[in-house]
Amino acid sequence: MSKLLTATPRHDGFRMPAEWEPHVGCWMLWPERSDNWRAGAKPAQHAFAEVAAAIAQGEPVTVCASPGQYLIAREMLDPDIRLVEMTSNDSWIRDCGPTFVVNDAGEVRGVDWKFNAWGGLAGGLYFPWDQDDLVGEKVVELERDDRYAPDFILEGGSIDVDGEGTLLTTEECLLNPNRNPDLSKAEIEQYLRDYLSVDAILWLEKGVYLDETNGHVDNFCRFVAPGEVVLTWTDDPTDPQYEISTGAYERLKGMSDARGRSLKIHKIHVPAPVLITAEEAAGVDKVAGTLPREAGNRLAASYVNFYIANDVIVMPRFDDPHDGPAQKTLAKLFPTRRIVTVPGREILLGGGNIHCITQQEPLGRRSFQIAGAA
Amino acid sequence: MSKLLTATPRHDGFRMPAEWEPHVGCWMLWPERSDNWRAGAKPAQHAFAEVAAAIAQGEPVTVCASPGQYLIAREMLDPDIRLVEMTSNDSWIRDCGPTFVVNDAGEVRGVDWKFNAWGGLAGGLYFPWDQDDLVGEKVVELERDDRYAPDFILEGGSIDVDGEGTLLTTEECLLNPNRNPDLSKAEIEQYLRDYLSVDAILWLEKGVYLDETNGHVDNFCRFVAPGEVVLTWTDDPTDPQYEISTGAYERLKGMSDARGRSLKIHKIHVPAPVLITAEEAAGVDKVAGTLPREAGNRLAASYVNFYIANDVIVMPRFDDPHDGPAQKTLAKLFPTRRIVTVPGREILLGGGNIHCITQQEPLGRRSFQIAGAA
Repeated sequence: MSKLLTATPRHDGFRMPAEWEPHVGCWMLWPERSDNWRAGAKPAQHAFAEVAAAIAQGEPVTVCASPGQYLIAREMLDPDIRLVEMTSNDSWIRDCGPTFVVNDAGEVRGVDWKFNAWGGLAGGLYFPWDQDDLVGEKVVELERDDRYAPDFILEGGSIDVDGEGTLLTTEECLLNPNRNPDLSKAEIEQYLRDYLSVDAILWLEKGVYLDETNGHVDNFCRFVAPGEVVLTWTDDPTDPQYEISTGAYERLKGMSDARGRSLKIHKIHVPAPVLITAEEAAGVDKVAGTLPREAGNRLAASYVNFYIANDVIVMPRFDDPHDGPAQKTLAKLFPTRRIVTVPGREILLGGGNIHCITQQEPLGRRSFQIAGAA
Repeated sequence: MSKLLTATPRHDGFRMPAEWEPHVGCWMLWPERSDNWRAGAKPAQHAFAEVAAAIAQGEPVTVCASPGQYLIAREMLDPDIRLVEMTSNDSWIRDCGPTFVVNDAGEVRGVDWKFNAWGGLAGGLYFPWDQDDLVGEKVVELERDDRYAPDFILEGGSIDVDGEGTLLTTEECLLNPNRNPDLSKAEIEQYLRDYLSVDAILWLEKGVYLDETNGHVDNFCRFVAPGEVVLTWTDDPTDPQYEISTGAYERLKGMSDARGRSLKIHKIHVPAPVLITAEEAAGVDKVAGTLPREAGNRLAASYVNFYIANDVIVMPRFDDPHDGPAQKTLAKLFPTRRIVTVPGREILLGGGNIHCITQQEPLGRRSFQIAGAA
């Protein structure tokens, strides 16, 4: 049903819209692996359910759960959340899911990247990742959308777009030899140009300090409007984050976007360092081949890992004095959306945050609707 | 997303359409259990793929496969078949799937019956059936349709409707104490009236000889138009089928439908008895709790187990002299549809045929489409 397309979105007139453009809904995966999520993933499941409920205030939400978790997820999720069976290796649909693209006629298609668990056998976070790699195809097929399947490893969290031809990313991730080792920087850029229809690619050096994704930009620096970005920041020069953030700030100041605009940069201060407690670490099953969670490890906490829904922004909070200013900044930047904050710690313990566990699906015409109207 | 409705379809103005009314598509489940399907289910998988391809000539087809079979099914199915992940205990979506109902405004909803594997612990065909029982809910949720969930065990193959208020069924199945033992015949009729919006319920005594479903009507006698039925027939008075078919013929002659019409009865002669060969029986894994497949057992072969797609009829053939006359009869009864025949033996070896492994989804407006148009 979902046609496999052999040209590129750029060739066919499709582009990746900005996250603030209208969605038909949001996709999530249900967490369950006890070697990444403490206490049998139960605290994480409650946290994911709270994120789903928050997003559902602003747009429809679909959660995908494995067959063994289906009835459990149904009980824990609000009844207005759509639940579908889908097996995955973990629950980061931003990274293993599809990237949807649209054209001017409002048609929607999916880009189904290859996925290798953030580095494959050279630093990836777990093995295997075969079911994660099917998530993109399965979601697109469920939605009866046509599909591009480039031979290119990319996680959705490693890029951000303004919907007007500009893409933000980091060298730490996209040029990491554990992603596409046989491609030059120019070839990698060509994939981004061809499959997302971008013209200007803005390279930052690194992402948030100790981010296990190899510096995903979606935890660090993101567009909030054409010509405007938010940047994870710290005023503490003794924090290793300081050099990363000031370095990015300097680069961003010298950049212009695809339309020739220079960028307005909004700093969002990080919370105080979030460390894994001994109790939290003890709750994670130790399994060979999966990144261990050790007590005292610092987590890559950042408010920039928010999700932009149609009517709300869902932002992680850390019960930290910086929560309020972060929320205020987002409220100012998204005046038509209500800011809903959700506890971010349990999701962060698994290695990411709200943006990492969500994937927007743009509003548009679908082949099913077109057929159904016949 | 899929709202659980507490009233009844009749109360809300919804009815089950006849199978010849327009479909948005057809659903199937992918066979895999080696204790029902010989040779690791491989011959059955090829047979199901051929049925899917035949139906796809006449309307879109979605096949549901378990996570372990997903990539295998993708390879074996034509690329234009939509494939979604869905776990089940076996592959009879006519019986464990939803029954879709529509209203005059063209809205579609699902009725999610309870399912107990054709008799539960009192003569059911396997244990457990928990995943089968979720198929109705999962399909309706995938389609974002609202859902009725009556506390009533019913298989879709045990009923047939003319879309104009008449329902055909058998006492052998619906009054069997292994289905709804606590309900009287009048109460069972009330469920059918309430959830399918029928007014006349036509009771036949039994279904096809040795049908392991307890005499499903969809293998025996079905509407082909308002006021017209096909009836599984034999001219051989020594065949136990003879008494069943002549008995049904007599009852049908005395019946009238919900609009007061008497019924035009078209006989379709069965093929010569189809027996399980020693080789076929040997290929089925023997597992305690699953109905065994013994060499020499007679199968409930019938041409009446066809599927009515938008543009084609898909009919089982048995390489029997009766194939041609059966096809001719259907061609006469469905003059606007092409008759496509598909080998029925491998499906029959598992206990049913083409109609049993399919479930139509009527064309209509869906909440998703309505939301998507906003």
